[in-house]
Amino acid sequence: MNELQLIDAFLAPFGLSRGAKARGWGVLSGPGDDCAVVLPAPGKKLVLKVDELVEGVHFDFRWFAPADVGHKALAVSLSDLAAAGARPRWFLCALGVPRDAVSMGVARGVARGMARLARRHGCALVGGNVTRARRWSLAVTAMGEAERPRGRSGARPGDALIVAGELGRAALGLRLLRQGRRGSAVRAQLRPEPLVAAGVAAGRFAAASIDVSDGFLRDLGHLCAASRCGAEVRLEDLPQQRLRDALSGGEDYALLFAARPPDVRRLVSALRRTGTQAREVGRFVPGRGVRLLSGGKVRPLPARLGWDHLA
Amino acid sequence: MNELQLIDAFLAPFGLSRGAKARGWGVLSGPGDDCAVVLPAPGKKLVLKVDELVEGVHFDFRWFAPADVGHKALAVSLSDLAAAGARPRWFLCALGVPRDAVSMGVARGVARGMARLARRHGCALVGGNVTRARRWSLAVTAMGEAERPRGRSGARPGDALIVAGELGRAALGLRLLRQGRRGSAVRAQLRPEPLVAAGVAAGRFAAASIDVSDGFLRDLGHLCAASRCGAEVRLEDLPQQRLRDALSGGEDYALLFAARPPDVRRLVSALRRTGTQAREVGRFVPGRGVRLLSGGKVRPLPARLGWDHLA
Repeated sequence: MNELQLIDAFLAPFGLSRGAKARGWGVLSGPGDDCAVVLPAPGKKLVLKVDELVEGVHFDFRWFAPADVGHKALAVSLSDLAAAGARPRWFLCALGVPRDAVSMGVARGVARGMARLARRHGCALVGGNVTRARRWSLAVTAMGEAERPRGRSGARPGDALIVAGELGRAALGLRLLRQGRRGSAVRAQLRPEPLVAAGVAAGRFAAASIDVSDGFLRDLGHLCAASRCGAEVRLEDLPQQRLRDALSGGEDYALLFAARPPDVRRLVSALRRTGTQAREVGRFVPGRGVRLLSGGKVRPLPARLGWDHLA
Repeated sequence: MNELQLIDAFLAPFGLSRGAKARGWGVLSGPGDDCAVVLPAPGKKLVLKVDELVEGVHFDFRWFAPADVGHKALAVSLSDLAAAGARPRWFLCALGVPRDAVSMGVARGVARGMARLARRHGCALVGGNVTRARRWSLAVTAMGEAERPRGRSGARPGDALIVAGELGRAALGLRLLRQGRRGSAVRAQLRPEPLVAAGVAAGRFAAASIDVSDGFLRDLGHLCAASRCGAEVRLEDLPQQRLRDALSGGEDYALLFAARPPDVRRLVSALRRTGTQAREVGRFVPGRGVRLLSGGKVRPLPARLGWDHLA
């Protein structure tokens, strides 16, 4: 196996080759040239996100098929674009590849899972890099466009807190996966669906947003800190099966929104029209941090709030 | 050490923090939000490149200071933008970080080297990612803007082949470094200077370009293949101290240009005005592949053409 053979194997599932002309929205030059060249839509803002998955940290080939890994590596970045309300356009992928007899087949599988998801969201692979490494790694830089991208800092006291998607299923799925089981929760862990349509549909009805990658409480805490306010969550309204997973599980790729009171109904309707479950689960308040309420009473926070990538 | 502490340590040398407003050309939102948001200049093309350096593959902390690694991780991507003639604007950096007592200090040093180079070229850090990993890795996605980006495929028979910068010094530097020596060749290995000003100055005088990262012969071969032509190189004109290093050494981050005969003088002058040495070293010809000439006679190609990242 050499570098160019591996690149060819990786490009094939995307319908690309090093020599061929790249396709896709605004793509002028893609993989095969030194740099990718794209033409952004005039006046739109460009929304950028890089994420990296590492073998042994984020996935394990005992449980993840290569196509699952490829899917997930792109999904996590698309989820961030969704939170910002951006339409996905282009992505680059830097691969760390072990020098190993099976790497070529793994690369093909990774690309298959990634290409399928990319096609569904109209996001074109425009460039990448291959390097030798001890273990597999996939750094995906995703780019999207939006007229008015949302950030984390637009929430204010009095806004409603809305959750789109499910909480805790990916954490449950991880436990089941390790027991050799299958099912929809396992699928939520292996092939999380970024809520791209919901993120775009939320449009100007949402004042701030974040995606739940590191756990509901931790990510809601980031949103509160950036917006310099606090939040109260009504536990009985959380979309969840098991409370601990829902609060701290991570990898759900649900979206949290802050909405001004007059926008709440329109936001929830817009989200549901994309086939995404959505509900109001609390509100933003003056002060700092997150408070959990159950039957109107304050409940203690769990000891572990979420996922720290280095702790 | 936790993730947020490491991010803070990394951002400080850039004059950034998670809470603060990001600065830089067209930067609307930077590190600290989920996604970066930038506003591309209307009508300009966006030029994109991702590159990754991995500890033990591209660098070794026995010989590289953390600041060297940070410098080089950005330099290699800026060199690709330079080949395309793009002005660097923004970059994202995905770090793989060992869970280790010295990682915080290493992150600070890496950021110092990277920030210094970024500042010199007006390229703003707008986002990134941190993950745990066995060994350090740095995936840099650099973005630049150009009116008419150059690619590899614009050369045609009859064009002149022009080299800007030096060949073989980085390879020599690597050998000296391993012997514990210092000097300008070692510096070319540790802190290669991307020829950004030269790449922009070349403008429309150059028809095609590539940067020399994997070795002169290998990269010239890529340029020929993409342009569907061959090339003849006059060895006596190559800017080099030791022929084998110059031909196959790699990591020089020189630029190769193809220029139509009427543009050659203006191209060479434009390059030299940026303080870059530049000379015509051969020409593009019909056919395929690269031929070496010495005293007008064909010379055999070396067995090793350059650097394959997986071989």
